[in-house]
Amino acid sequence: MTNVQLTLVQIDNYGPWTVTPEPRREMDLQTLQSRLFAELAQFVGSRGGYVFFTRFDNMVAVTNGLDRADHELMQETIRNRYPVTISLGVGVAERPIDALESATAGLQRAGSAQDGDRREVLAGETLAAGERTDVDLQIAHFDVNGATEKYTDTLNEFDSFIRIEQGYAVLMRYLREEHGGLAFFVGGDNIIAVLPSMTAADYERSIDHVADTADVELKVGVGHGRTAHEAGMIAKHALEDCREDGLRVVVEE
Amino acid sequence: MTNVQLTLVQIDNYGPWTVTPEPRREMDLQTLQSRLFAELAQFVGSRGGYVFFTRFDNMVAVTNGLDRADHELMQETIRNRYPVTISLGVGVAERPIDALESATAGLQRAGSAQDGDRREVLAGETLAAGERTDVDLQIAHFDVNGATEKYTDTLNEFDSFIRIEQGYAVLMRYLREEHGGLAFFVGGDNIIAVLPSMTAADYERSIDHVADTADVELKVGVGHGRTAHEAGMIAKHALEDCREDGLRVVVEE
Amino acid sequence: MTNVQLTLVQIDNYGPWTVTPEPRREMDLQTLQSRLFAELAQFVGSRGGYVFFTRFDNMVAVTNGLDRADHELMQETIRNRYPVTISLGVGVAERPIDALESATAGLQRAGSAQDGDRREVLAGETLAAGERTDVDLQIAHFDVNGATEKYTDTLNEFDSFIRIEQGYAVLMRYLREEHGGLAFFVGGDNIIAVLPSMTAADYERSIDHVADTADVELKVGVGHGRTAHEAGMIAKHALEDCREDGLRVVVEE
Amino acid sequence: MTNVQLTLVQIDNYGPWTVTPEPRREMDLQTLQSRLFAELAQFVGSRGGYVFFTRFDNMVAVTNGLDRADHELMQETIRNRYPVTISLGVGVAERPIDALESATAGLQRAGSAQDGDRREVLAGETLAAGERTDVDLQIAHFDVNGATEKYTDTLNEFDSFIRIEQGYAVLMRYLREEHGGLAFFVGGDNIIAVLPSMTAADYERSIDHVADTADVELKVGVGHGRTAHEAGMIAKHALEDCREDGLRVVVEE
Repeated sequence: MTNVQLTLVQIDNYGPWTVTPEPRREMDLQTLQSRLFAELAQFVGSRGGYVFFTRFDNMVAVTNGLDRADHELMQETIRNRYPVTISLGVGVAERPIDALESATAGLQRAGSAQDGDRREVLAGETLAAGERTDVDLQIAHFDVNGATEKYTDTLNEFDSFIRIEQGYAVLMRYLREEHGGLAFFVGGDNIIAVLPSMTAADYERSIDHVADTADVELKVGVGHGRTAHEAGMIAKHALEDCREDGLRVVVEE
Repeated sequence: MTNVQLTLVQIDNYGPWTVTPEPRREMDLQTLQSRLFAELAQFVGSRGGYVFFTRFDNMVAVTNGLDRADHELMQETIRNRYPVTISLGVGVAERPIDALESATAGLQRAGSAQDGDRREVLAGETLAAGERTDVDLQIAHFDVNGATEKYTDTLNEFDSFIRIEQGYAVLMRYLREEHGGLAFFVGGDNIIAVLPSMTAADYERSIDHVADTADVELKVGVGHGRTAHEAGMIAKHALEDCREDGLRVVVEE
Repeated sequence: MTNVQLTLVQIDNYGPWTVTPEPRREMDLQTLQSRLFAELAQFVGSRGGYVFFTRFDNMVAVTNGLDRADHELMQETIRNRYPVTISLGVGVAERPIDALESATAGLQRAGSAQDGDRREVLAGETLAAGERTDVDLQIAHFDVNGATEKYTDTLNEFDSFIRIEQGYAVLMRYLREEHGGLAFFVGGDNIIAVLPSMTAADYERSIDHVADTADVELKVGVGHGRTAHEAGMIAKHALEDCREDGLRVVVEE
Repeated sequence: MTNVQLTLVQIDNYGPWTVTPEPRREMDLQTLQSRLFAELAQFVGSRGGYVFFTRFDNMVAVTNGLDRADHELMQETIRNRYPVTISLGVGVAERPIDALESATAGLQRAGSAQDGDRREVLAGETLAAGERTDVDLQIAHFDVNGATEKYTDTLNEFDSFIRIEQGYAVLMRYLREEHGGLAFFVGGDNIIAVLPSMTAADYERSIDHVADTADVELKVGVGHGRTAHEAGMIAKHALEDCREDGLRVVVEE
């Protein structure tokens, strides 16, 4: 049974800031957002977690292994080096969607994302060390079969992007609705999902659904672990096994 | 009549690199990708252009105002500071999709994105200074009405993201198919599109289509300019006017 | 009695790389060096350590609290995201200079800094958790009295810099020769030193020596701790006490 | 005859900010400073200029080729993405020290570096395009003979650093006093100097002076150009010629 600790990272009052006193240069905003994400990717990633950029002003992190002091330090280092601050909501549950629901609710109770007085909230509790197990996380790494040949080397880049994006849109909704899992596009033709315990047959059905609905062929490697990094690295190797052996689904137990 | 110069930025042989000699830490890849994007956002952005992250291994830039030497310098500085190199394809056309088709074709002719010997291609021609006009670009900046109240402060972050993503998915396909325009999600509830000459009525129809299909309410500000930055800044102000006056579409002539 | 763990960070074969196949743009090299330093400052700093840029191609880190796995991860993340790799030598001793001597020797035994085949060495042993105490580190934070009024607001910037630099040059040599301590210029008018156990009288003499030799007036706050961050933060507060109370030396026991 | 445009970059009210409301984490400050420097190195460097980190809170840039709009854009992009702002003073003169004197005076007239109300000053005038020539800049690139063998591979890193630092300290003072030139340590065993017109014999005497006073053996390559980058790249190639041919001074006319 999985036990997922998710952290919602929310830039405080970001929307209003981007247009005060007047709209800021778009490329400066893009730079700020992507560097802030990179910052968190390193902080969380070097402690075994994962962060996904989602909407950039709201990011979702898998933080099994990070405690409250780690979260406070993350807030401090952003405050010291960026013109914005971040609030953090933490949630723990068997299903990722329930953990995120709880993480989000913690911030929502503290006020609106655009409340200028609500700054650097840290809501929710992290997992105690004693409650953690080696199978707390199930991570699936999907990619698109033949993406380079079928899309990148054949279509213009926007039409390639539309195809990949369509596959992602179908998969994300399916996993969220059927399993309470969270799937994130991570660049190229790659999608990484945080999931509750799912079987190989569940993955087969997911891939069939995407093929039927969006005409995009996926394959997937799946791993378990104590942290997102551990589970994700096993998933990556499983995906390599798919590639080499021509399989659609490899679940490492 | 618009005259759009687009540059396709493609990381050379990136997919294979990410798994050689074995899969690399995902958060390192995420950091690398987002910092590379930020790098280009500053380089292109401080010269009046725009870059969109698209799939990260392939990015689309609006480069009116950047010449061949600028493109070469961009390749040089990435080669000097990153473990990867980039190829660039440039295309010019009235419709953005045609410019991108041409930009993409330049790279495709030079070899596959995963050809290990194809490195640092620079294909295509930039606009001569004498051909440029003050209305070469039309940029539209969309956002979602009441996103904070309806989504961010109410739903869990993933369900908010799904709603925004659905609105984006419908809009991107509509603009591409109906107008040959390119729309990019840029974070939060914002979408920026590069478009051929379109009327206020065209924008009304786009917004209606998204409302009807995805049940997401958009508004849009539109600007013209010699560079993406100029057009985009006017669009941002027009969007502020929408907000203040309760309008759905403001097109600055 | 202090117990200092120092890590020498050395970019592998960097000199030759900067001119191969021909000299690289200087500002790209400066960017690469300063970003690499920033990277390590975050990695080490968020784990309680300190890094000093020294010569940039060789950097000195105070790594009490970081174990071998942390060092390996630091090498991995640099390899994944930069065009260069780093070797690390670790040394532990009561006096900082002896720790650095040992850290340096570990790398030197493995080959020359410009040996193209010597890559990603990790030499030396970190402190076992059981050997660590709350007074392993003594950190002193010096600054220049009235630097803004006397220099920055009065002289041209280069002449200000020369004065600060002269004060630093005298202090660094004095502390190294008299005490086996390591002093680093950290920007502005600030110098941070890692020292063995020294008394307030020792600090008075150091400051007198700099005043007599270089005509630069310093003050200093000193702290002890289990990590560089802990000791350094106490030193910063002690320096604030100097400022408020007009003292030259405040040593927090 | 050289015609040097220098820009003094000064972080506004930085000292007080670093200790408000209480002292900030040192590694966050180091990260902020070095990333800010890297930012400017890219901005200025990709336009043909050079920036030197000097004291980090005050940096000196060679900005021939950058106009007032470029300087304003630099201020805007920092304001948009950092928690601090910068003031800029520009000066032009035949001798670098006179240009810097003028650049510094412009900021000093506007108020103290620690005046909380003095923000984003832009003082002084840039060179008109018509006044620029192909020999406006003379850049010299020095390095230390046998630094790797004599120092890096033999001494501990701090003692290597002291030797290099001593050589630099002597050279910087000599060039400033004898020629009104500005020399900057740029990492490793490299020193880059911005100088007025100097002869090969002048360089021989400089090198002799450093050898006699600090017992450090230097060699130097010298170039001229319209921008710092052009002059500096020629200087780098000249230094390579020194290396290959065993020469101490190569001045490219």
